[in-house]
Amino acid sequence: MDVMEAIITRRSIRKYSEGQITKEQLMTIIKAGCYAPSAHNRQPWHFVVIRNKEKLRAIAGFHSYARMLPGADTCIVVCGDKERQPQTGFLIEDCSAAIQNMLLTVHNLGLGAVWCGLYPVIHLTRGMKQLLSLPEHIIPVGLISIGRKGEERTAPDRFDKSKIHYEEW
Amino acid sequence: MDVMEAIITRRSIRKYSEGQITKEQLMTIIKAGCYAPSAHNRQPWHFVVIRNKEKLRAIAGFHSYARMLPGADTCIVVCGDKERQPQTGFLIEDCSAAIQNMLLTVHNLGLGAVWCGLYPVIHLTRGMKQLLSLPEHIIPVGLISIGRKGEERTAPDRFDKSKIHYEEW
Repeated sequence: MDVMEAIITRRSIRKYSEGQITKEQLMTIIKAGCYAPSAHNRQPWHFVVIRNKEKLRAIAGFHSYARMLPGADTCIVVCGDKERQPQTGFLIEDCSAAIQNMLLTVHNLGLGAVWCGLYPVIHLTRGMKQLLSLPEHIIPVGLISIGRKGEERTAPDRFDKSKIHYEEW
Repeated sequence: MDVMEAIITRRSIRKYSEGQITKEQLMTIIKAGCYAPSAHNRQPWHFVVIRNKEKLRAIAGFHSYARMLPGADTCIVVCGDKERQPQTGFLIEDCSAAIQNMLLTVHNLGLGAVWCGLYPVIHLTRGMKQLLSLPEHIIPVGLISIGRKGEERTAPDRFDKSKIHYEEW
């Protein structure tokens, strides 16, 4: 799929049909995350892959916007390493760029995904740290719920020229 | 360009050749930013386009990682609106996803760009707010320096399987 077509037609997909994503698809998605830009090229991300249904249900239990997770095939929790990038703001930016690469790649593979925020909501990051036994210096930034598409969504017109300013506000 | 090819081959470009990017290219780049996902679909971003050489030099004067700016054709400062998204963490995530869409689109157009961080470095956000007369509720998250490519950079191998964890850390 062409880059611009992927960017324009990508939508959040929260309903999934039966069927697994393949190991090759999973690696392609994570690889795309690894190729994001990062401050000082520190690549401070980690990826925790969750397919265990009990764990997916546990996340849905404490994350009210991730209630679709038990219906998904795979959840990838994108985490940032504070030892590698102590500036938390940059860590969040780097992991967000990685997530966006991954969402575009999921769409390119014909699969569906939605990004559910974690950081900086305390009960969500705490819940995830406990569930995944994350070390203290690892921040769960966001999760991606992925599966075979169970819905089709069309692209809205989001190009809003009123958001553009020239030379100053 | 195919999505995956764009993701893999995109590099930060800091050297530019003479020549302007067109109005159509500029609109395409900003449009890509507008199609990023955002928390609760609030689309809290704004784009300040700077082409004035004095302003580009002024930014390079206070941002030590943006010294290439006077050689660039265009700078786009991606800002987040705190009134639209009061949760700053989400605001940063949304704007970062927009920036990544824009970087991929620049690359797809055959142009070169580099993302220079602003938030949360206080002297950078303050300097930018003053220079661009940004209102109090508008946070400059990052800037993109864009121009015709003056260097070619090859893609490194960034896929690091040691960053992948299964079911827990």
